[in-house]
Amino acid sequence: MKPLLQAMKERRLYLDGGMGSMLQAAGLPEGLLPDVWGMENPQAVQGVHRAYLEAGCRLITTNTFGTSAPKLAPYGVTPAQVMTAAVANVRAAMDQAGVTDGYVCADIGPSGKLLRPYGDLDFEAAVGLFAETVRAAAQAGADCILIETMSDLYEMKAAVLAAKENCDLPILASLIFDETGKLLTGGSPRAAVALLEGLGVDVFGLNCGLGPKEMAPVFQALWEDTSTPLLLQPNAGLPRSEGGKAVYDVSPADYARQMRPLAPMATLLGGCCGTTPDHLRALIQATQDIPLPEIPQWDTLLISSYCQAVALDGRDPVIIGERINPTGKKKLQTALREGDMGYVLGEVFQQEEAGAHILDVNVGLPGLDEPAVLTQTVEAIQEVTGLPLQLDTSNPAAMEAALRRYNGKPLVNSVNGKEESLETILPLVKKYGGGLVCLTLDDEGIPADAQGRLAIAEKIVRRAEAMGIPRRELLVDGLTMPVSAGGDNAKVTLETLRRAKEELGVKTALGVSNVSFGLPKREQLNQSFFTMALEQGLDGAIINPKSEAMMGAYRAYRALAGLDDQCQAYMEAFQGETASSPAPVSQAHTLGLRQSV
Amino acid sequence: MKPLLQAMKERRLYLDGGMGSMLQAAGLPEGLLPDVWGMENPQAVQGVHRAYLEAGCRLITTNTFGTSAPKLAPYGVTPAQVMTAAVANVRAAMDQAGVTDGYVCADIGPSGKLLRPYGDLDFEAAVGLFAETVRAAAQAGADCILIETMSDLYEMKAAVLAAKENCDLPILASLIFDETGKLLTGGSPRAAVALLEGLGVDVFGLNCGLGPKEMAPVFQALWEDTSTPLLLQPNAGLPRSEGGKAVYDVSPADYARQMRPLAPMATLLGGCCGTTPDHLRALIQATQDIPLPEIPQWDTLLISSYCQAVALDGRDPVIIGERINPTGKKKLQTALREGDMGYVLGEVFQQEEAGAHILDVNVGLPGLDEPAVLTQTVEAIQEVTGLPLQLDTSNPAAMEAALRRYNGKPLVNSVNGKEESLETILPLVKKYGGGLVCLTLDDEGIPADAQGRLAIAEKIVRRAEAMGIPRRELLVDGLTMPVSAGGDNAKVTLETLRRAKEELGVKTALGVSNVSFGLPKREQLNQSFFTMALEQGLDGAIINPKSEAMMGAYRAYRALAGLDDQCQAYMEAFQGETASSPAPVSQAHTLGLRQSV
Ligand SMILES: [Zn+2]
Ligand SMILES: [Zn+2]
Ligand SMILES: [Zn+2]
Repeated sequence: MKPLLQAMKERRLYLDGGMGSMLQAAGLPEGLLPDVWGMENPQAVQGVHRAYLEAGCRLITTNTFGTSAPKLAPYGVTPAQVMTAAVANVRAAMDQAGVTDGYVCADIGPSGKLLRPYGDLDFEAAVGLFAETVRAAAQAGADCILIETMSDLYEMKAAVLAAKENCDLPILASLIFDETGKLLTGGSPRAAVALLEGLGVDVFGLNCGLGPKEMAPVFQALWEDTSTPLLLQPNAGLPRSEGGKAVYDVSPADYARQMRPLAPMATLLGGCCGTTPDHLRALIQATQDIPLPEIPQWDTLLISSYCQAVALDGRDPVIIGERINPTGKKKLQTALREGDMGYVLGEVFQQEEAGAHILDVNVGLPGLDEPAVLTQTVEAIQEVTGLPLQLDTSNPAAMEAALRRYNGKPLVNSVNGKEESLETILPLVKKYGGGLVCLTLDDEGIPADAQGRLAIAEKIVRRAEAMGIPRRELLVDGLTMPVSAGGDNAKVTLETLRRAKEELGVKTALGVSNVSFGLPKREQLNQSFFTMALEQGLDGAIINPKSEAMMGAYRAYRALAGLDDQCQAYMEAFQGETASSPAPVSQAHTLGLRQSV
Repeated sequence: MKPLLQAMKERRLYLDGGMGSMLQAAGLPEGLLPDVWGMENPQAVQGVHRAYLEAGCRLITTNTFGTSAPKLAPYGVTPAQVMTAAVANVRAAMDQAGVTDGYVCADIGPSGKLLRPYGDLDFEAAVGLFAETVRAAAQAGADCILIETMSDLYEMKAAVLAAKENCDLPILASLIFDETGKLLTGGSPRAAVALLEGLGVDVFGLNCGLGPKEMAPVFQALWEDTSTPLLLQPNAGLPRSEGGKAVYDVSPADYARQMRPLAPMATLLGGCCGTTPDHLRALIQATQDIPLPEIPQWDTLLISSYCQAVALDGRDPVIIGERINPTGKKKLQTALREGDMGYVLGEVFQQEEAGAHILDVNVGLPGLDEPAVLTQTVEAIQEVTGLPLQLDTSNPAAMEAALRRYNGKPLVNSVNGKEESLETILPLVKKYGGGLVCLTLDDEGIPADAQGRLAIAEKIVRRAEAMGIPRRELLVDGLTMPVSAGGDNAKVTLETLRRAKEELGVKTALGVSNVSFGLPKREQLNQSFFTMALEQGLDGAIINPKSEAMMGAYRAYRALAGLDDQCQAYMEAFQGETASSPAPVSQAHTLGLRQSV
């Protein structure tokens, strides 16, 4: 256990509060980058750190919010130089204050540029910028990386990856939401939880932008979804402008009072703009006796795009559109070979319109540069839809390339029980995050019975957990085989689903339509098998959402399983439609009974 | 326990063999009724009985095969007089032989007339004829009633009812099958088992018509279906005509050898035409050390018409056509009021053609004489179809009238947990036989949860079993309520089905279409709910078989559940049909896997 993460569990630790306005008071000139000024005015910076230490804060943030190569270039200094000086300032302040149990948080702020497609900063370039700062922080002896005030999940992903790839320090990740509960690029709290838990940050939460009162609903939303300790650093209320300067009106006493109700959900508390050592002192006094939260371990699997999340809660199933897959589709094959995204995007719109929640993306074609094409296709799709995606490839290089560039937390299709698969895919999921579809086959092939498939599923679960991938992230795929090839094929698949869920506590996924291969009236078999699979606990249904029969079965299942409150979704989908043949007559005896009781 | 039934379990008892040819040898003139001649020639009859007693037989059949009022009328004697003399002859023979452990079987043969609709003998008239003989037998002190050589299940039902209503003696019932394994009126062995076990005879089996070898397959078929002790009395082979007289060629030794392999399935063995005391002696010697069969208690519920049976085995579901029900059907209402059967019979043909296995018959209309109309409707339907019927009425008088006249063993819809219902319906089922649909409601109404419905089901099961109606005869109806009226309605019904089956070991039934009441696109909901119910163990599905969606769901379920060997039934039903929209693309990864393993 990293020392900070251990200490954090044992007692309440506090982050510090605002830095900029305090440095201004200490002489920071208007328009100068505080990071650079701090190198030359170590006493001023150390004074601020010391004041927070004396107020009781123990996680002290380096004065490096703006430290990145492009911002520093005009000053002729490197991130390494700034970070080294900034870490030394914190250490010096701790010495001056006689504090031996403090932690240096290497502060990483946003790049100041928007990433593609919103701006022109390339994702890998962003990773590179953050990486330089991270390496400097580790080199300078920081105790953790604090990525903060991020307003875009994609940039956050770049920063977290940079941290994971360039140091072994604990990672704290903090986002800035607006008053509507969204990030600048539209992300929801749940999408943030999905991404950050997928990436495996140690602590995450909220800072800046809002005061404790305005932040409360977003923070509550995080709390209700996450299984990770949370941090909370609001401003001293909403700013108002006074003579061109931002003024924060919430007093230390009010700040502390507003923070109290949030403290039972927060592992780390601190402040942001407008907060002072007095705010922190009041906060600490008001909350230090509140017990640390017990971090719940939720079972829900969250998948996300840049803006929204889809929850697989083990109860309410979701539709994974299967149409972006060149198998047997001449037009799509041609489009992929010619780099023409029009056909793909048409399928995106149609499937979204039809009600899909997640879109499968498979571009596997012989002779295609799959890592490049899959990544480009994923990026093109993410430009036009907020639906999360399922990355579907058996090419590990393509999987890693797409996983890296994917904006959010995708489904990963798939790992299987072969050693080679486990060794390549599990580390990718551990690093990038993703709900993982686990195919129940191994070097021996597909077991004929459910017992054999479950044994493989169990092996994958064990291996994933040993790597730190929680069970909730796994979807066991029972493997649909054509019932025409064996009368027990459907039964075995359904039993695998049911038992995987019951005995292993995982989610389940299934491609449905293969069941009817070789038989007439395929949609009837598909629809029936789909309904049966839903009843056995199918969570992620890989189907054609453009099939009315399949979406009808899905909507009917939800109504019948009590998942569609007052059948509203069903009625909305089908209002105005009547049965295609005369409505079947209700059973007289049942109707009769209803009248008689 | 009646003494014979007790003794029968403790050791092998033997019936006797042929009587007619032995009496001819003793002087019975050609053309004279042996029953009457025996009254005047007691020594001859007693001599035959004594010979069988000395051979080791202990169930001695009275010389009353032709004893019924019409046949006796020319001779000026009554059945009572003949039966009294015949019983006395057996008793005298036992005295002469010093046998104290013998039993007198009062023999009842066929009436010699065909019942309506084949002939002109009314069902109740037949019951009346048999009743007279039964009363005489009981009066004369017979130990059991042996109804034998019956070639029509409807006449057998009349005779058994006469026995049940006019004495407390054990009832042995024996049928004559032809070489194709059918009764004269077309009944199959399984239809015989259904009827006779429903009526609760103590022993049943086969006699006459065939020799042991020819009878073996039919006897084996009975054994594989029944939970009742069996009797077996073949002729001494197939007869050939010699000088206008039937001659039987199987020798005593051959008879005994051919009977040996059947003995492990038979509780009572004996002979029929062509067998002699020597045959019986050889038979006894060859089989008396073979252990008595352990009577298996099967779980399968058999429902039947006059000719065929439908098995509800708890695995493979059956379709109960719901269309003959006037609720909401103006045309049917008019037809029933006007006594016009055309519309009803049209529904019969259409539902049979569509694949129904059983037809529900409900004629409940205000102001209609339901006992009369239901009985007439059932009779009219049975004239045109061999499908078994479900008698569906809440009028107990109508239920009894229809149950009595029904040719076979019907489904009875329904009993419920109300005391009044239990007290009227259970005795009817005990008397006439029938698979019993048990509605899970009582005086308090329909319980909102599965637990409450199961409690009612359990109460009905307990009460039925206490009356001697086996659990296998019961179908618990989970009661379908509209999901529009409550989000949990479908779930509660499905849970009731599943748990009734698992916890109570009963069959299940359900009217399906009520689930979609008040919602658009009803067939989609009906189809989905139907599939879900099938997967939860629905045995008897009360649906509209004319709905393609419903029958499609049924056929697909059977294929997917491994109940349709090589999907043959599915392919036959839909050959030539393709999916209504382009066939959904099989999942690439699944197909890919199949190719790679
Ligand atoms: Zn701030
Ligand atoms: Zn005979
Ligand atoms: Zn006979």
